[in-house]
Amino acid sequence: MTAPELTGHSLIAGRTVAGTGASLHAISPATGESLEPGYSQIDVEQLREATAAAAEAFSSFRSLSPDAHADFLDAAADEIDALGDALIDRATQETGLPVARLTGERARTTNQLRMFAGVVRSGLFRGARIDPAMPDRTPAPRLDIRQRKIPLGPVAVFGASNFPLAFSTAGGDTASALAAGCPVVFKAHSSHPGTSELVAGAIARAVESHGLHPGVFSQVFGPGRTVGQALVADPAIQAVGFTGSRAGGLALVSAAQSRPAPIPVYAEMSSVNPVFILPGALADDVADLADGYVASALGSSGQLCTQPGSVFVPAGERGDAFVAAVTNAIEKAAGQTMLSPSIAGAWRDGAATRDQHAEVAARGTEGEGPNAPAPVIHATDIERFTSNEVLHEEIFGAASLIVRYDDPRELPTAAEQLEGQLTATIQFADDDVDQAAALIPVLERKAGRILANGWPTGVEVGHAVVHGGPFPATSDARATSVGSLAIDRFLRPVAYQNLPEELLPEPIQDANPWNVPRLVDGSLT
Amino acid sequence: MTAPELTGHSLIAGRTVAGTGASLHAISPATGESLEPGYSQIDVEQLREATAAAAEAFSSFRSLSPDAHADFLDAAADEIDALGDALIDRATQETGLPVARLTGERARTTNQLRMFAGVVRSGLFRGARIDPAMPDRTPAPRLDIRQRKIPLGPVAVFGASNFPLAFSTAGGDTASALAAGCPVVFKAHSSHPGTSELVAGAIARAVESHGLHPGVFSQVFGPGRTVGQALVADPAIQAVGFTGSRAGGLALVSAAQSRPAPIPVYAEMSSVNPVFILPGALADDVADLADGYVASALGSSGQLCTQPGSVFVPAGERGDAFVAAVTNAIEKAAGQTMLSPSIAGAWRDGAATRDQHAEVAARGTEGEGPNAPAPVIHATDIERFTSNEVLHEEIFGAASLIVRYDDPRELPTAAEQLEGQLTATIQFADDDVDQAAALIPVLERKAGRILANGWPTGVEVGHAVVHGGPFPATSDARATSVGSLAIDRFLRPVAYQNLPEELLPEPIQDANPWNVPRLVDGSLT
Repeated sequence: MTAPELTGHSLIAGRTVAGTGASLHAISPATGESLEPGYSQIDVEQLREATAAAAEAFSSFRSLSPDAHADFLDAAADEIDALGDALIDRATQETGLPVARLTGERARTTNQLRMFAGVVRSGLFRGARIDPAMPDRTPAPRLDIRQRKIPLGPVAVFGASNFPLAFSTAGGDTASALAAGCPVVFKAHSSHPGTSELVAGAIARAVESHGLHPGVFSQVFGPGRTVGQALVADPAIQAVGFTGSRAGGLALVSAAQSRPAPIPVYAEMSSVNPVFILPGALADDVADLADGYVASALGSSGQLCTQPGSVFVPAGERGDAFVAAVTNAIEKAAGQTMLSPSIAGAWRDGAATRDQHAEVAARGTEGEGPNAPAPVIHATDIERFTSNEVLHEEIFGAASLIVRYDDPRELPTAAEQLEGQLTATIQFADDDVDQAAALIPVLERKAGRILANGWPTGVEVGHAVVHGGPFPATSDARATSVGSLAIDRFLRPVAYQNLPEELLPEPIQDANPWNVPRLVDGSLT
Repeated sequence: MTAPELTGHSLIAGRTVAGTGASLHAISPATGESLEPGYSQIDVEQLREATAAAAEAFSSFRSLSPDAHADFLDAAADEIDALGDALIDRATQETGLPVARLTGERARTTNQLRMFAGVVRSGLFRGARIDPAMPDRTPAPRLDIRQRKIPLGPVAVFGASNFPLAFSTAGGDTASALAAGCPVVFKAHSSHPGTSELVAGAIARAVESHGLHPGVFSQVFGPGRTVGQALVADPAIQAVGFTGSRAGGLALVSAAQSRPAPIPVYAEMSSVNPVFILPGALADDVADLADGYVASALGSSGQLCTQPGSVFVPAGERGDAFVAAVTNAIEKAAGQTMLSPSIAGAWRDGAATRDQHAEVAARGTEGEGPNAPAPVIHATDIERFTSNEVLHEEIFGAASLIVRYDDPRELPTAAEQLEGQLTATIQFADDDVDQAAALIPVLERKAGRILANGWPTGVEVGHAVVHGGPFPATSDARATSVGSLAIDRFLRPVAYQNLPEELLPEPIQDANPWNVPRLVDGSLT
């Protein structure tokens, strides 16, 4: 298909709606030039059209059969694929990310929608449980009680700057909310509005072609301080998904808690993703490990949630060889264009602050254009690290901190002082297994995902992955924002006592017409 | 066994600890007399001993084998049973509740511990998921990723006044937290300290006889404003369970959110448990329905979380017959002793306020003793109900509000205006099925449990029950505080990527030594 013309407007319940506010233009981070069209900003009154439509759509959307529901998710994926090169071209202009990265990200995005279609068809997420009646039980008979999970209601999702596809309009939060049966009101990130418009149009076409209520999906452009806050405060909204900065996430949490009836916020906020390199991992060739580190730290200009921001390296000969290999690679590396001028500016500020607290181990060169600062690796030792909270802060972009330790037995204590993380990694060899085993129980309490002999960037979307973790990695450690378990965020259990078959919802009818897995008297069937 | 002598002190990690504060005595609500012994109040410094011990116990407690873990829960139930009549006697003195009710409540409490022992043995709660490696996948191989749920850490539990056993020391919050692998620091309710001491001793004996770290369980007596707040703020504490008033629950939510790292609070707070009587239900004999309502509204002096506080009744002949039967029964009813002088006082205030907003349909007589106010039923119509928020407030105790409606088609709109509820009930006959079906989608969004042709009091502990619901019924609608799903409140998922078998936790080892149900590549095994 030919990609649709960009309108520069919000999409509210299937209609293109011109905002009453000023138009804002995306900036190409590679060139600094302003991209057409400008995007009109809606006001709070216009936002209400989206939330009201979502509330109206909820009842029919949450009652879809598994096949109708899953077909819609598959169709949304197909519509995104059908946008073809136009989507990649626009995303490249708006984000400065390479075509290969964006092509991979698009596959991740559509695979994710299709995975959730499978989740909807399989039905485990419906949490069906049946405790049959026991009319002859003494001293009192037991009544029939059944349980299923229902969707919470319309969900507000905020797009991330660093994943214009996989954490944006049709990203993991949107996909899991739609899979749960929750309409979505999506607040687009201002840095890639054209990409967002293309994807929103794809979802809207799937909504329309499947005969769904148009309120199932809306996308709005508007200021965070007014429209974003009003979206979280709107009584129709029942949960919030967010990926971005700590300050941004905490503002939404606060707004959600200030409502007359508070709602859950799933904010993925910040992480330095510590990597613990045990001595055995450096016994032979250090080159592979150094290459892996540099690739993981600098890829996508370091703008990944799971970028390894701190790496614990043994002091002495082995560690020195590793650091030498790393510094050699970094010094040859040129900066890559960052996502936006403001992100590049924040990175420069963060790196300048760190210059005052740790030595510079290696600095690359500035890249082309105004927003491609030179990557930098700092170094410190474990005493200075544990005593200086500034060194625990995330610098979003191509920066990382090497922390030298003398004895691997120091590592569990150092890990204990870390804040909550999305990931924690151990690099080790056979003779380090005892030290790795001692670290794992600490890392389990600090992180959502633990890796052995790998690098944390490159999140696999599947059933077992966790992209979450204790505060401040996220605002709710009980959840993941990637993978099929993400659907659980938007559900809650309801019990039905003594209802006749004709009034029971399908997943807990005797006949089990949707063929969902069920727990009967505590045993899986 | 002979019941242990009461010491009047806290139990901290297996030791009896005399508080530095004043001693407080329980008051017999039946007689107003002060009960011996007095209970010494600990200070915040002493509280730290309990939370530090819980933190220390966490590592070994969460690593128990399913059998060792479940045997401990069974033993705690056995130790409570072994307290015999001494427990019931003391609970009767402290709460004024009848022996039969307390005997039933004890059975519920110990059955609940034994049910969770079964949950621990079966292992579904461990959330084991395996996405096996796909080394040959293109364009990139897939790494092995596995997931399990781990306990959050030490949990603070606050005892409720109205269930001295089933929502107190060894109640549902404690049982589910211990089953999850979380040590518990329990803050006893000041109205039944002797009952609490007896039960805490039983748990401590089970801890000791099973060789567990004594920090697995502590029970403290202390002021809510200092010790209670400090408990929620303590960095060792990772979640909170509470059953009680809305003000009390919201104070804990606020304290938990003010921490540097916020933690989840599961507060069960308030509910009026609406009952919708459709016309067909009153077509024949109204006596059974009236008896059921009166028994449910007045049982335990109305002091049950699921007491039916508002009942929608059709105007006209059928409804009048029902109301006449109810008022007849109420006018013959005498007040029963309430749990404490302060609860009786709050009830009197609430009933007096309602006198100004609704007509009195029937009032019983004052019961014996100072704390047995006359039960009362008020009446209003649906217009006044929907336009007056005062009539939506819970009056904790033997009061209920009859709301007359003209047409059952008014009910979905009226239900839409209710706050979140623990339960919602529909009484109906065959010819009301369409109206019942129209109500259910609204009630699903308002309540945790929907009942047909029954009364909401009498919560069955099982696998399918939900004792929860949207705010303000609870602070977290995604959870239940009764039933086996309650364990999920104290767990979070962790993913393990590329770990060798020897470093994987048991539930996700290839060999599956604990024989837990697992999701492999998205399919249950």
